[in-house]
Amino acid sequence: MELLSSTKSFGGWLKRYRHESLSVKGEMTFAIYLPPQAETQTVPVLYWLSGLTCTDENFMQKAGAFRKAAELGLAIVCLDTSPRGTEYPNEHDSYDFGSGAGFYLNATVEPYSNTYHMYDYVVQELPHLIETNFPVTDKRSISGHSMGGHGALICALKNPEKYQSVSAFAPIVNPTNCPWGEKAFTGYLGEDKAAWNEWDATCLVESQIESASERLPLFIDQGEADNFLAEQLKPDALETACEKTGHPITLRRQPGYDHSYFFIASFIDEHLEFHSTALS
Amino acid sequence: MELLSSTKSFGGWLKRYRHESLSVKGEMTFAIYLPPQAETQTVPVLYWLSGLTCTDENFMQKAGAFRKAAELGLAIVCLDTSPRGTEYPNEHDSYDFGSGAGFYLNATVEPYSNTYHMYDYVVQELPHLIETNFPVTDKRSISGHSMGGHGALICALKNPEKYQSVSAFAPIVNPTNCPWGEKAFTGYLGEDKAAWNEWDATCLVESQIESASERLPLFIDQGEADNFLAEQLKPDALETACEKTGHPITLRRQPGYDHSYFFIASFIDEHLEFHSTALS
Repeated sequence: MELLSSTKSFGGWLKRYRHESLSVKGEMTFAIYLPPQAETQTVPVLYWLSGLTCTDENFMQKAGAFRKAAELGLAIVCLDTSPRGTEYPNEHDSYDFGSGAGFYLNATVEPYSNTYHMYDYVVQELPHLIETNFPVTDKRSISGHSMGGHGALICALKNPEKYQSVSAFAPIVNPTNCPWGEKAFTGYLGEDKAAWNEWDATCLVESQIESASERLPLFIDQGEADNFLAEQLKPDALETACEKTGHPITLRRQPGYDHSYFFIASFIDEHLEFHSTALS
Repeated sequence: MELLSSTKSFGGWLKRYRHESLSVKGEMTFAIYLPPQAETQTVPVLYWLSGLTCTDENFMQKAGAFRKAAELGLAIVCLDTSPRGTEYPNEHDSYDFGSGAGFYLNATVEPYSNTYHMYDYVVQELPHLIETNFPVTDKRSISGHSMGGHGALICALKNPEKYQSVSAFAPIVNPTNCPWGEKAFTGYLGEDKAAWNEWDATCLVESQIESASERLPLFIDQGEADNFLAEQLKPDALETACEKTGHPITLRRQPGYDHSYFFIASFIDEHLEFHSTALS
């Protein structure tokens, strides 16, 4: 791991690193915020998955999360939204596919299947790297925004034993049934839609692969003035699936809020409190 | 005024506007955060002056100030760091002169003297515009970062009757005696250094144009790991001038903190509390 920068904030340290990832067969950059408590003890970790076009930097710069994380003694890890450094056909042509748009899945269509293994990176490689190299416990929670909210939901629903809690801001909850998801899943997973369902939070809740006792409650905030609400995000689909199968969900519709980090910042403290309670 | 965007955050609204400025003879963009209290009453205003290369957006996106502003019932106004839209010689060649680097003074050297009147804009035109068009009181405070810290200090020192309080993060306190200031003042004010002193916070404190009863206490945070500390910022010069003349100053040296918004975010709540107390 190569340390890229180290910046003090709220008594803790924001550190950015570059490392060679086995999952994506190339260099990846991540950032970790270590609260002041990490100087003398191990702390639990919240993983944050960002949305389309983002890198590890957006959340750290704009969410205003460090004050509360420093108060709670919570580390936060942010990662990039795709592998970088390749030149596949169409990889850099649009904001919603390829670079900056890895969708936190394991691609099966060539050439993306060679390196776009963001799911393995999030669920396996990165926690191992973090827990080996930093003063953290093995207690993990996960959250994210938009495409990253989708990522947080599928990672937690597929691995409830790995996470203490999950939350999301304005997540894509039903990617098999919206333009962003259909484009990405076609490109990464192919035309056969049967293969898509295991990467769709609503389908995962409907199929209930976990037993009732293992089910992680879903905590979601959605702005009602979000431009992407009706066409891309459709939280009603997930809510309906949860009602049908008895999966616990708290979906808060926030009047007047849009899709931006100004919305995330407004409610991040409550998400950090929610995760901290589950992690302690 | 043309409304560019309106975004809900912490129950209040961040609004960006474009307007035709008389001071700088061209279009200017500013942003105002109106806390929830502004829906039913008038609120006081903190003016924020940003540093080199910034626009009205940096503070609003990165300082994490809205939570506390919403709690205190404080409006925040952010403006651009220079006039825009002209094509003067060397205006866009460097980050520390011309566009993005107006230094909050009134230029006297042609062609900058035609439009670079940021001091008039900050002290006269913008408060008039804000107080005419928004639900605010005529109580004002002022703060800023780096070049904007310099701006806040000179605006308050030259007009103690216009502001209830002043603070700064990592300000350029003695621009007549550092490379950033010397370059800018030569370009905007000319070679005659006698004309520079009225735009230098340390010189203004030394000359004490205001009476003792009018003196606004200076509240300054400075990171000790700031890359620009020794060569450009030199807070000791201002501290010495204050000691010599009895001007009240609180200069806090913060160990480990750098020049970034991660530093500002760490202490912005205390600055907002300081201003709110003075404004109420």
